Amino acid sequence: MTETILKMQKKVKRYLDKDRYDHTIGVMHTAGCLAMRYGANLEQALTAGLLHDCAKCVPADEKIKLCEKNHIEISDAENKNPGLLHAKLGAFFAWKKYGIENEEILRSIESHTTGRPNMSLLDKIIYIADYIEPGRDVAPNLPEVRALAFVDIDACLYRILEDTLAYLAEKGATLDPATEETFLYYKNLKNSDSEKEDKN
Amino acid sequence: MTETILKMQKKVKRYLDKDRYDHTIGVMHTAGCLAMRYGANLEQALTAGLLHDCAKCVPADEKIKLCEKNHIEISDAENKNPGLLHAKLGAFFAWKKYGIENEEILRSIESHTTGRPNMSLLDKIIYIADYIEPGRDVAPNLPEVRALAFVDIDACLYRILEDTLAYLAEKGATLDPATEETFLYYKNLKNSDSEKEDKN
Repeated sequence: MTETILKMQKKVKRYLDKDRYDHTIGVMHTAGCLAMRYGANLEQALTAGLLHDCAKCVPADEKIKLCEKNHIEISDAENKNPGLLHAKLGAFFAWKKYGIENEEILRSIESHTTGRPNMSLLDKIIYIADYIEPGRDVAPNLPEVRALAFVDIDACLYRILEDTLAYLAEKGATLDPATEETFLYYKNLKNSDSEKEDKN
Repeated sequence: MTETILKMQKKVKRYLDKDRYDHTIGVMHTAGCLAMRYGANLEQALTAGLLHDCAKCVPADEKIKLCEKNHIEISDAENKNPGLLHAKLGAFFAWKKYGIENEEILRSIESHTTGRPNMSLLDKIIYIADYIEPGRDVAPNLPEVRALAFVDIDACLYRILEDTLAYLAEKGATLDPATEETFLYYKNLKNSDSEKEDKN
């Protein structure tokens, strides 16, 4: 762990409540382990994991205000549920308050809640680490999803998207179009891969 | 993460210096990720990772005294290098001070520095997590060893034993017989596996 990360860790701790901080450290290390497994840059994965929720504990109205002030676009879904803005605002804070200039890290923070089509390896790592870190315990099928994360990252990503959509449908929650767009992108990709396999 | 682990985490923090605590949290989560990958008990892996170095910051003469007082056998190698005793003493503390009664956890703490012949899955997880956690940076070939940990745990264990022996030989350090015994056990195992494969 570099001095830079340890310094950022101290700062992040000041802005998060105890539970969120414990979760954050879990995501940071799980992202680190996924990076080890798939040959991603360890330092970048730890940094993105550490900062992914750095805007989470900002009150909802403050989130809206900060986005407006800093010209961060707010979608209809985010207007209805400002909590979602912590991802975009987190990427902004990572740049502005923590001096992160690496675009890959910033994008992985921005997309960690909804995912996005055509995710990079780092995006997938942060999205999955957020879902499986050891402090999580409510998602269905966690043991299978956790093992899959270290065996086949793409299958794991798809599995989480499927489970998340089923969970939101069951709860009757409004679906963020970004989550749906991500799911449809990976569903199409999976179908076209299956077709290719059938033809071979 | 259960409340029990979070409570133990607070206690461990009081007995370790800052660097050792950061390392400990790294080992705890890396052990957790290895447990996810190989279907070991997540809670046990996190607990063993958290407690593996709980006796590390006890001064050397105090280590000797505590072992003598509690009838913990001290080998010649440990008498020469009392630092090694943190593993046996750690298992004792885990039981006495942290209320851990699970034999598997205690054994994995006891054997985390030298390894031992015929290690359990949990022993391997703690031994490897200690070597690869994100804060480590001096061992040779870390990127390969880290990836291997999540792909083939036995090959990774053997690789670490080989690298450790080579490192100790290069440094001219005295070899703890327990480390050598572990290495020879796994070397024989590997050779007999190769022979079986050759015969097939």
